[in-house]
Amino acid sequence: MLYKRNPQLNKNGELIHLLSIEGLPRDTLTHILDTAANFVSMNDREVKKVPLLRGKSVFNLFFENSTRTRTTFEIAAKRLSADVFNLDISRSSTAKGETLLDTIDNLSAMAADLFVVRHSESGAPYLIAQHVAPHVHVVNAGDGRHSHPTQGLLDMYTIRHYKKDFSNLTVAIVGDVLHSRVARSDIHALTTLGAAEVRVVGPRTLVPSDLSHMGVRVFHNLEDGIRGCDVVITLRLQNERMSGALLPSSQEYFKSFGLTPEKLRLAKPDAIVMHPGPINRGVEIASAVVDGPQAVILPQVTFGIAVRMAVMSIVAGNGAPP
Amino acid sequence: MLYKRNPQLNKNGELIHLLSIEGLPRDTLTHILDTAANFVSMNDREVKKVPLLRGKSVFNLFFENSTRTRTTFEIAAKRLSADVFNLDISRSSTAKGETLLDTIDNLSAMAADLFVVRHSESGAPYLIAQHVAPHVHVVNAGDGRHSHPTQGLLDMYTIRHYKKDFSNLTVAIVGDVLHSRVARSDIHALTTLGAAEVRVVGPRTLVPSDLSHMGVRVFHNLEDGIRGCDVVITLRLQNERMSGALLPSSQEYFKSFGLTPEKLRLAKPDAIVMHPGPINRGVEIASAVVDGPQAVILPQVTFGIAVRMAVMSIVAGNGAPP
Amino acid sequence: MLYKRNPQLNKNGELIHLLSIEGLPRDTLTHILDTAANFVSMNDREVKKVPLLRGKSVFNLFFENSTRTRTTFEIAAKRLSADVFNLDISRSSTAKGETLLDTIDNLSAMAADLFVVRHSESGAPYLIAQHVAPHVHVVNAGDGRHSHPTQGLLDMYTIRHYKKDFSNLTVAIVGDVLHSRVARSDIHALTTLGAAEVRVVGPRTLVPSDLSHMGVRVFHNLEDGIRGCDVVITLRLQNERMSGALLPSSQEYFKSFGLTPEKLRLAKPDAIVMHPGPINRGVEIASAVVDGPQAVILPQVTFGIAVRMAVMSIVAGNGAPP
Repeated sequence: MLYKRNPQLNKNGELIHLLSIEGLPRDTLTHILDTAANFVSMNDREVKKVPLLRGKSVFNLFFENSTRTRTTFEIAAKRLSADVFNLDISRSSTAKGETLLDTIDNLSAMAADLFVVRHSESGAPYLIAQHVAPHVHVVNAGDGRHSHPTQGLLDMYTIRHYKKDFSNLTVAIVGDVLHSRVARSDIHALTTLGAAEVRVVGPRTLVPSDLSHMGVRVFHNLEDGIRGCDVVITLRLQNERMSGALLPSSQEYFKSFGLTPEKLRLAKPDAIVMHPGPINRGVEIASAVVDGPQAVILPQVTFGIAVRMAVMSIVAGNGAPP
Repeated sequence: MLYKRNPQLNKNGELIHLLSIEGLPRDTLTHILDTAANFVSMNDREVKKVPLLRGKSVFNLFFENSTRTRTTFEIAAKRLSADVFNLDISRSSTAKGETLLDTIDNLSAMAADLFVVRHSESGAPYLIAQHVAPHVHVVNAGDGRHSHPTQGLLDMYTIRHYKKDFSNLTVAIVGDVLHSRVARSDIHALTTLGAAEVRVVGPRTLVPSDLSHMGVRVFHNLEDGIRGCDVVITLRLQNERMSGALLPSSQEYFKSFGLTPEKLRLAKPDAIVMHPGPINRGVEIASAVVDGPQAVILPQVTFGIAVRMAVMSIVAGNGAPP
Repeated sequence: MLYKRNPQLNKNGELIHLLSIEGLPRDTLTHILDTAANFVSMNDREVKKVPLLRGKSVFNLFFENSTRTRTTFEIAAKRLSADVFNLDISRSSTAKGETLLDTIDNLSAMAADLFVVRHSESGAPYLIAQHVAPHVHVVNAGDGRHSHPTQGLLDMYTIRHYKKDFSNLTVAIVGDVLHSRVARSDIHALTTLGAAEVRVVGPRTLVPSDLSHMGVRVFHNLEDGIRGCDVVITLRLQNERMSGALLPSSQEYFKSFGLTPEKLRLAKPDAIVMHPGPINRGVEIASAVVDGPQAVILPQVTFGIAVRMAVMSIVAGNGAPP
């Protein structure tokens, strides 16, 4: 951590920004998941809206393009009745030489209440959170390789939904852990919530060697890595890794680390399979697994909206830091 | 048709998707036009909104860019009080190798209620409609050369508005019929609604030879084609046809098939002139006709919003297919 | 002016379009500023919305891209409860050869109530305002080098907020006056509101020689230009001027015309410093001034939202021209 005290919490220990799962207490995570559960049940109603953020302005600041993630935040904010403004940052004033913090100051002066920030640089949302006025809130929608906390939280929601309790679970995270902010967020969340064992599984070129200090077991063989697991989280393999020095080819990768029905049989019979999307069928996961009974990939998406509603309503409801 | 029974109707014969005018019964078309009439009268009110889709999520999925058409659906959905999400598909996950149906599954998992789909491939909206959950609805906003049903319906609304009854009408569709989904939709709608005579008029390179089986009369001469007509529908000439083998030049085309005031005099004195827009003045139609008293091109646009409101509110109000 | 009578006012002298500050009476400007003051105080409320434009459709027509300015109008319109439609004009039908006025006619037929227009051609908003139906309103969001009236008004709001009265003020506008629609709008507004003295300050290549007829004093030396001023408005230096024949380099420019704390000491001790944004730190203004106690650049942004709310609610509330 760059900061002596956690900048995500006010002096009462309440969540005012969501920047990273690292450093958040178990109670905070549980409170978010409990709040999300209320919003999940709302999906069955005729009118899927609540007025919790009515009259508030949510700015989607995507310095890195991600239509999917932006849309999930836009949906969540509109279901909370906020006004949502999508800024195409690459075409805007930052492109004209304005500094990041000048951009933030300007948008804050337009009476922004909440910034959802995606940035290719690790730490950018921290910088923004340190800078904004006390009544303005920041939610990290993915920064560099560092963190993707709402993805981590929706993964925890999904696991809790299907497995109830974390304390006896073995969870394997499979794939390109090196470049994955999702993996980092999942590891922190699982550790905090008390999962019995967290494993990372992948080729030596894609699994950092220094992960054992995070309390995880490292495997370079898929069969060993998923044996006896309750949960298998497969990671997306970025196409741009394929042609580089890190991997021989996507077929080679699939042969060694692609999750097939055969390999999945090594996990517990009731193991669930997760994926943050978008899926590369036949690369990190076989179509038969994606479409099979153990996959909970689409429920993850549904829960993701509720988790983002929970995060936004919680931070917006909490006061300034000391 | 690819399907044995019409996938647009539920077992009670109610409209649950709008994919194509082909195969829809006359009662269904009339019901849409009657519903649209209520929305047209709403335009004069101070507040042009009704809460029929409040809390519903409408996704504009434009795989092919069309700002104009997307805007008309966005306006219609917002006037029904829906939340509208515009997805820039070309920049999103489909560009990352995700399949069309995985994209649809994902968006459905975000609790989409209605997809408005524009696609360059004929049949894409059918594929999506077959795939989605029973409570999700699909409206085709144009697929390949196949169909553009809301344009067809707004054309019918316009004709009915000015001519009251279809049974004595002669309607000429003039121009690039070969590449026009509008022409196809209009022909099906006019036939279903009982127009006395439907004509298509255009050069041999732009009028398919197999149209006579659709119950239309084919003309390759504008004067003959519009003589005695009640309605003249001019089609937009795509610029990209001009430089190809299909047409010599836009000036040549205008000389032979451009609708001028002189040629329009061959139609009935009270004939109306329609165009789906955007207009190429001086190519398929003379400015004097566009700005003249017989043109009803702008009322078409106004009626188009009401027709789209009607379609969305009708499908959203009807239950699942059997 | 191109027009014999002011097309912005109806026969009762009420504002129906905002096209330019030139030609608007002092009472009209004061009425806008007074109305904006009410909206500024609204920013402190929990719900920052009023229903003044509920059910109205506002179209942002940005023929020239400006994410920042578009966002300010979008925020203002949504806080008035309007439905807002952002049209990416460069990708739409105008690109398909449709004329500007055909585009306007089409959007008007979709029941637009208010157009916010940004265009690289001076006069485009006038052309549109002359063309639209009586109940449709036009707000100029910047046209060519001609006018940027809402920026001019928010500058006046800011000056009045800090200085109360215009009659004793000396205001210096510093920088690239030649290419600045902001400068033009400010000069007209300050003259109308009765500022004691308006100065323009800049290199000979960037200050038009014919400005003295507008009632301003021209300075080509920054020290002389800001001596004794109450207000210093610095203008953004467009990067594209730098490499041309007009300016040697941005360092050279900063040495001569960049506003530093030392130079600012020549102005009155309580002088305020303004900038329309986005800022080039170290080009037209030193960071120490931007971040110093005399800068009111961020309040300008806040007031800008309120001013745009005022303009939109005023024009939408006034009837047709005679």
